[in-house]
Amino acid sequence: MNKFETLQARVNEIIEQEKQTKQPLSLYEPVDYAIHQKGKRLRPLLVLIATDMFNTDIAKAEKACMAIELLHNFTLVHDDIMDASPLRRGVPTIYQKYGINKAILSGDVMYALSYQYILQCEKDKIPSLTKTLTSVLINICEGQALDMAFEERNDVSQKEYITMISLKTGILFAGALKMGAIIADADVEDMNSLSEFGLYSGIAFQLQDDVLDCWSDLSSFGKVSGTDIADNKKTILYLLAMEKANDEDKALLNKLYTEKIIDIQKKIQDVKAIFEKYNIKESVETMIEQYTDLALNSLNKISTDEESKSNLKTFINQLLNRNK
Amino acid sequence: MNKFETLQARVNEIIEQEKQTKQPLSLYEPVDYAIHQKGKRLRPLLVLIATDMFNTDIAKAEKACMAIELLHNFTLVHDDIMDASPLRRGVPTIYQKYGINKAILSGDVMYALSYQYILQCEKDKIPSLTKTLTSVLINICEGQALDMAFEERNDVSQKEYITMISLKTGILFAGALKMGAIIADADVEDMNSLSEFGLYSGIAFQLQDDVLDCWSDLSSFGKVSGTDIADNKKTILYLLAMEKANDEDKALLNKLYTEKIIDIQKKIQDVKAIFEKYNIKESVETMIEQYTDLALNSLNKISTDEESKSNLKTFINQLLNRNK
Repeated sequence: MNKFETLQARVNEIIEQEKQTKQPLSLYEPVDYAIHQKGKRLRPLLVLIATDMFNTDIAKAEKACMAIELLHNFTLVHDDIMDASPLRRGVPTIYQKYGINKAILSGDVMYALSYQYILQCEKDKIPSLTKTLTSVLINICEGQALDMAFEERNDVSQKEYITMISLKTGILFAGALKMGAIIADADVEDMNSLSEFGLYSGIAFQLQDDVLDCWSDLSSFGKVSGTDIADNKKTILYLLAMEKANDEDKALLNKLYTEKIIDIQKKIQDVKAIFEKYNIKESVETMIEQYTDLALNSLNKISTDEESKSNLKTFINQLLNRNK
Repeated sequence: MNKFETLQARVNEIIEQEKQTKQPLSLYEPVDYAIHQKGKRLRPLLVLIATDMFNTDIAKAEKACMAIELLHNFTLVHDDIMDASPLRRGVPTIYQKYGINKAILSGDVMYALSYQYILQCEKDKIPSLTKTLTSVLINICEGQALDMAFEERNDVSQKEYITMISLKTGILFAGALKMGAIIADADVEDMNSLSEFGLYSGIAFQLQDDVLDCWSDLSSFGKVSGTDIADNKKTILYLLAMEKANDEDKALLNKLYTEKIIDIQKKIQDVKAIFEKYNIKESVETMIEQYTDLALNSLNKISTDEESKSNLKTFINQLLNRNK
């Protein structure tokens, strides 16, 4: 079995060595820009960890790594248009840099390239891998549609929010692990437990993201702090605050999220003050621990030995202790 | 072998009976709207014709029909955003009706659904069908990127234009036929000749489209006449005119395509007058005949009997004699 750091380094090598040299440049340059921005690359790492834990040569999983990283970046490119996000990973988003049309089209080709990588895997694995990739994307689209619909609603429940982030984030973590397991010919029960681990750790990751968006600074997080508040995003922080706050604070929060406000920095401060008054950060951290426990329970069910599971334990520990 | 009309009717049945009933509605309603607009449905028809000409039960090709129709509609949905087209098939485009964000996302899910249909085909055909679908989309994206790049260039050659429409249109016709042939276990030579037929007839189709955009009326074409001129699209009409016109008309044409003009109807009339002065319509019709001949030559190379080829002959004849 490989060390965690070895797998991390391998993921970077795999992605760095892939360079789109095809024409037209106007289509492929944004693809390169997107995948070489040094994101966290968690999802391809999950592919390698899964293949490796079943004692299979990780070389077999390299193409699937690229597929999953391209799929993920494709969703980011299109999401950034929909969310009008100016920055990602500390640099301009694709649509900011190249315009909406090129961003739509480069996103489209990234998704197709992702299948092209799957088609380079072992032939007997292609149907299952294609099925996984397809089902992941359908779920992500459904999650993004819910996310957009929630912006127009005032009655989103915590449960609905968890469903939405499961679809947008959890399913992709699960899919990455499943692909690694398919490549390693893991048995169905192990594959399902691994997918469960991915789902729960993806939920924990997204909840952590909501916390970091609010209480992190630009230099470490790569985005402007408080963007979710600025954009009136009804994250778990907002939903919990609306549940816990007294009527007066609830009305204030509602006002801050619905009225047009010129001084955005002041708005962010006011919202954070309410979040802090009701210990929202701590509540979310409790939820994150619960999902982490669920993930670790799923990991326990897998039939391989304890040592083989250590990389996924490291993975989830790093998720919880990150600052970006 | 089935009659042409039988296959046409079957295509309509296959598409009509497919209804997206899944949630969230905001994602799937635009998908339904797109595929049930009664477009020409030429591409799924090509899938069925190809399967049928090799004496294979067309029931085996139904899922691939849906896949190809969804793929095609996905590209239209995204193209209409990029081209800011208000109408298609005589009704508002998806982005006009549902907004840009929903149009991007519904387009994305249509592409994923297209793979989901491929995954319902016979298992041993899945890798080849997936490969065809993927390669078609990559080509379409490259074609669309060239199309957008041409808008900013003044030196586009006829050859480059034909390359662009081959990628955007020809390859999809070829891909549809290839998928039908894959399902029918046709041999490689026949598959290649069939793809060639698709490529050339797709080019002829697109050239015909350029002619119809200029010399058709709204009621039969489903779009506003002269939109290509209004949008300064450098179609084959423009490229041929720039080649044939005298210096004075060339300068006028260039002026009409670059300066901001308020009276669009007058602009369309002026451009059409130049096209007509140089018999551009007739020149394009000659090109269409040449590509049709190339297509028919490719058809001749196929090893099946003459009768089996009659549906593709009917297909190309109808392409040439359509008014929409």
